Amino acid sequence: MTAYQLSPIAWIDTPFNEKFGIPRQSIGLSQARGKLRFREDINVVNACRGLEKFSHLWLSFVFHQHHNKKWSDTVRPPRLGGNERVGVFASRATHRPNPLGLSLVKNEGLNTLNELIVSGVDLLNNTPILDIKPYLDYADCAKDAICGYAPSRPSDLKLVSFSQSANHQIKKINQTQTDFKALLVSILEQDPRPAYKQDLKNDPKQYHITLYQWDILWWVRDTGIIVKSITLS
Amino acid sequence: MTAYQLSPIAWIDTPFNEKFGIPRQSIGLSQARGKLRFREDINVVNACRGLEKFSHLWLSFVFHQHHNKKWSDTVRPPRLGGNERVGVFASRATHRPNPLGLSLVKNEGLNTLNELIVSGVDLLNNTPILDIKPYLDYADCAKDAICGYAPSRPSDLKLVSFSQSANHQIKKINQTQTDFKALLVSILEQDPRPAYKQDLKNDPKQYHITLYQWDILWWVRDTGIIVKSITLS
Repeated sequence: MTAYQLSPIAWIDTPFNEKFGIPRQSIGLSQARGKLRFREDINVVNACRGLEKFSHLWLSFVFHQHHNKKWSDTVRPPRLGGNERVGVFASRATHRPNPLGLSLVKNEGLNTLNELIVSGVDLLNNTPILDIKPYLDYADCAKDAICGYAPSRPSDLKLVSFSQSANHQIKKINQTQTDFKALLVSILEQDPRPAYKQDLKNDPKQYHITLYQWDILWWVRDTGIIVKSITLS
Repeated sequence: MTAYQLSPIAWIDTPFNEKFGIPRQSIGLSQARGKLRFREDINVVNACRGLEKFSHLWLSFVFHQHHNKKWSDTVRPPRLGGNERVGVFASRATHRPNPLGLSLVKNEGLNTLNELIVSGVDLLNNTPILDIKPYLDYADCAKDAICGYAPSRPSDLKLVSFSQSANHQIKKINQTQTDFKALLVSILEQDPRPAYKQDLKNDPKQYHITLYQWDILWWVRDTGIIVKSITLS
């Protein structure tokens, strides 16, 4: 059988250094920004000419951190509570016969170093990008689509609050990383815990996520999600 | 640089045996049906479990008929009359650094042979499919997107008529291929001629397209597009 050899056109820098906590399908998460560093033989100014006229872009990428792991023909999507199995092609699961991902992002344009800035990313830091295509609404938006078990964005957002020391850190970090607090809140309010724990209040477990170089420790109480501390990881 | 080896999960049968005449971004072209034949090691029933709950699907595919041809960092999209150049990433051009295509199609379900039927396809017959993902409207549809030089579907449709002999053939073909006439009309009314000829009425040139095993001869007169003859190719 013919196989096709595809090489990255770029790699994307994102705030997400580990998989846990990366929002799923995050076009709504406008705070999460990414920077595409193109490979050297691509003339970026030429290849992106006219791209500024499109507000949204498709990124085709490789789920690079597990392309050697075996895929299974059924998966348990978090949306179904992690219990029910559906076919791998009826899901956006990362383990697929081909480790291809697809993400719609907002186009923020080239910077002065000819890196392409995008926002609303849900990609792991350093993800290899295979292609960029302009979003065409007449072709890419299906009116009246029926979307199975994921008919709409998860809407039940948790309240996020901060301990005194976390608050103190946030203020410091925000001086250089101006989107930090907004990004952190938008990730935590979706409750990144495994689906079977979503209903558990007063969860005794402490959780970590990392954003940029920061390690964030949080837990879930009656009042919602509480960030306990933020430290350099 | 790491390259990724991707193997087709399926191949799609479509009415389009040659590139000329294939509609671009054809979600509106509901008549054009495709049939995905999965590769043998995939358990189709498992891998597609729950797919029936989604009305639309993304197909990631390979532009297989020219993956050895060199790509260029700028291209001339037909939408701009074929004159103006834009960056390859600001277009859906087929010649790209990675020959990856993306198409939104309607899900018509598995048939009794476990082949997946889709409609609204704009793919060449026998195109290798790399992935199938469910369409999620909250993630895949960008409200208020700005779409550069392709803000909407081309709407200026030509009138299509048939010579007496073509009409006779159509009636015969339609007995076995019930979508034939509707499909042919929906392709021709978009005027598949090169962009720089779109305004030319009474074009002396005769054009061919093929659909399934049929060769269709047509030209453009004052009144619109006239199908002159339909023969087995």
